[in-house]
Amino acid sequence: MADRIYNFSPGPAMLPLAALEEAQRDLQALPGTGISILEISHRSKAFEAIINEAEANLRKLLGIPDRYRVLFLQGGALLQFAMVPMNLLRGQGKSADYILTGSWAKKAMQEAKTQGGVRVAWDGSSGNFKRMPSQNELDIRSGATYVHMTSNETIQGIQFPNEPNAGNVPLVCDSSSDFLCRPLDISKYGILYACAQKNAGPAGVTVVIIRDDVLQSMPTDLPSMLNYRELADSKSLLNTPPTFAVYMVKLVTDWLLRDIGGLDEMHRINKQKAEMLYGVIDQCGGFYDGHAEPASRSIMNVTFRLPNAELEEKFLKEAKSRGLVELKGHRSVGGCRASIYNAMPVEGVQSLRDCMLEFHDRNKPA
Amino acid sequence: MADRIYNFSPGPAMLPLAALEEAQRDLQALPGTGISILEISHRSKAFEAIINEAEANLRKLLGIPDRYRVLFLQGGALLQFAMVPMNLLRGQGKSADYILTGSWAKKAMQEAKTQGGVRVAWDGSSGNFKRMPSQNELDIRSGATYVHMTSNETIQGIQFPNEPNAGNVPLVCDSSSDFLCRPLDISKYGILYACAQKNAGPAGVTVVIIRDDVLQSMPTDLPSMLNYRELADSKSLLNTPPTFAVYMVKLVTDWLLRDIGGLDEMHRINKQKAEMLYGVIDQCGGFYDGHAEPASRSIMNVTFRLPNAELEEKFLKEAKSRGLVELKGHRSVGGCRASIYNAMPVEGVQSLRDCMLEFHDRNKPA
Repeated sequence: MADRIYNFSPGPAMLPLAALEEAQRDLQALPGTGISILEISHRSKAFEAIINEAEANLRKLLGIPDRYRVLFLQGGALLQFAMVPMNLLRGQGKSADYILTGSWAKKAMQEAKTQGGVRVAWDGSSGNFKRMPSQNELDIRSGATYVHMTSNETIQGIQFPNEPNAGNVPLVCDSSSDFLCRPLDISKYGILYACAQKNAGPAGVTVVIIRDDVLQSMPTDLPSMLNYRELADSKSLLNTPPTFAVYMVKLVTDWLLRDIGGLDEMHRINKQKAEMLYGVIDQCGGFYDGHAEPASRSIMNVTFRLPNAELEEKFLKEAKSRGLVELKGHRSVGGCRASIYNAMPVEGVQSLRDCMLEFHDRNKPA
Repeated sequence: MADRIYNFSPGPAMLPLAALEEAQRDLQALPGTGISILEISHRSKAFEAIINEAEANLRKLLGIPDRYRVLFLQGGALLQFAMVPMNLLRGQGKSADYILTGSWAKKAMQEAKTQGGVRVAWDGSSGNFKRMPSQNELDIRSGATYVHMTSNETIQGIQFPNEPNAGNVPLVCDSSSDFLCRPLDISKYGILYACAQKNAGPAGVTVVIIRDDVLQSMPTDLPSMLNYRELADSKSLLNTPPTFAVYMVKLVTDWLLRDIGGLDEMHRINKQKAEMLYGVIDQCGGFYDGHAEPASRSIMNVTFRLPNAELEEKFLKEAKSRGLVELKGHRSVGGCRASIYNAMPVEGVQSLRDCMLEFHDRNKPA
């Protein structure tokens, strides 16, 4: 770690050092092939083994049932915002319910509007997106084509403690910023998707987990690259997949299984890291003003404000001087944000906690 | 190059060793940042410099005029097959002309059919796609919305010696498998696109060069990630781009400028490499049966058959034992194919030439 620093970026985010080291060691040639992972054919046996292992790792970590397909796609969550309604929402009488929990949920609904009918099942905007809805606040129609949720709002720093109950309506989840942070009951979802660049790998690949029966209901007249069924039938090899990014997902999930020991343990560590920072927020008497209501606090993105813009700038500068970077909040909301994804070491969070406590001591109101 | 071999894969393909070495050296942390390229924020100054340099390198290599935008997108050429008609072909009375030169051109037209009216401007299928059309064979309507061409057919191994003249109709070109192999007059194109994994970088990024006035004619009601105008306005940063793949495009284009000296020289080398293999085909009295007619021979993909399947298998085995791999033709057409993109060293082609000559000597008909 000699010249590496603690990077609290909301994504792309830190990766496990073990994964970076293995990628670096083998970058000129994968063992036994004489060919770099950056050059290898996506139809080769070596790559077939890599993509199969990445899928097997995800199935093992999340206990994904056999009736779900695991796809490795391109275009990020933003393309999924469009592909979900393209595949599910076109046709007479179809309409989807969206749970508006923050910036990303709003964006997902906006994209869906280009493809079909959408309706709001809950809207947290009047409360400034400080919390997730409770089950009885959700107005989900039993006849909705699907319900869309965002499990973690990266920008606001709020997270569903559990998935809502959508009854018989297929639940579609953007899990981009908390995928693999904790165990998940995949059987509750129709589709769950996540761009990789938070917990699963580098930017450039998006994992889509999709139930067989949902897949079967889809139209066949879409362009191939936007058609879940064609993508699933080809096992994500309709054209050249982002081979290197898939390889990195394999290395990161190897690390989760081998070095961490699975998602129960990862969850324990993530809660421990989050509690360190929320502890500071709670004990500094409002100096650090947390955005999220306690019951909706994200264990991935900790958002807070300081008493004024000058102190915020001073704090960010001081943190940077201690090797703690990318702590500025999203440009749309300001403030500070510490993204503490799976690969952020406990030591990095301890260092940020100490920085926050010391900064408070020196700058608190007299 | 100790344990690296000569990889004649049609893509992903060999990359310049200098680019691999630099990527490997800096994989844990980009100089001066303490953050890996795999972890760096796409909104950071360091990444902004990288994507700007990648674009500047492409502009310099190809002499791209200011009135063209250069985009770095995801989804490969297959998604471009759909995005072009989505953006250009929707609306009353629009219809595009497709030049059917081989497998990829056919696939491009098939995808376009899902979005609007298409028409064939020339069809080489009856001649088994052994050649490109001459200008006077092309039936391009002056009122066509655009004309689509495929500059190089990877599977058949044929290449346009020059772009056809489309008059005032915007010329849209899939240049995936010969992009950067030679100088190009970009001003003749409305849109030129190329997935990176042949001459420009690894899989996972697609370069799209698009003229301002073509961009202005596009609809605005498309999903963001499928909307060229939104993508151009955001400078390819509508969401997280494939940061590592863009970085590799920068390293590969650095190599083209610094180590090769530009596209004139690259073209000279590519012609030299291609002539070595076509020379063997021509001098072995039909033992190696080249697919392409001489005037349409691709300088990127050299396709040929041996007298029978047993000899083909024996040849592939012998080549492999000499460290020459991925010489099997595409599964849809069979035979052999040597893809000799920019990064394939002259020495690799010499080695294949020697292998072909010796194999011929030992196996030619008595």
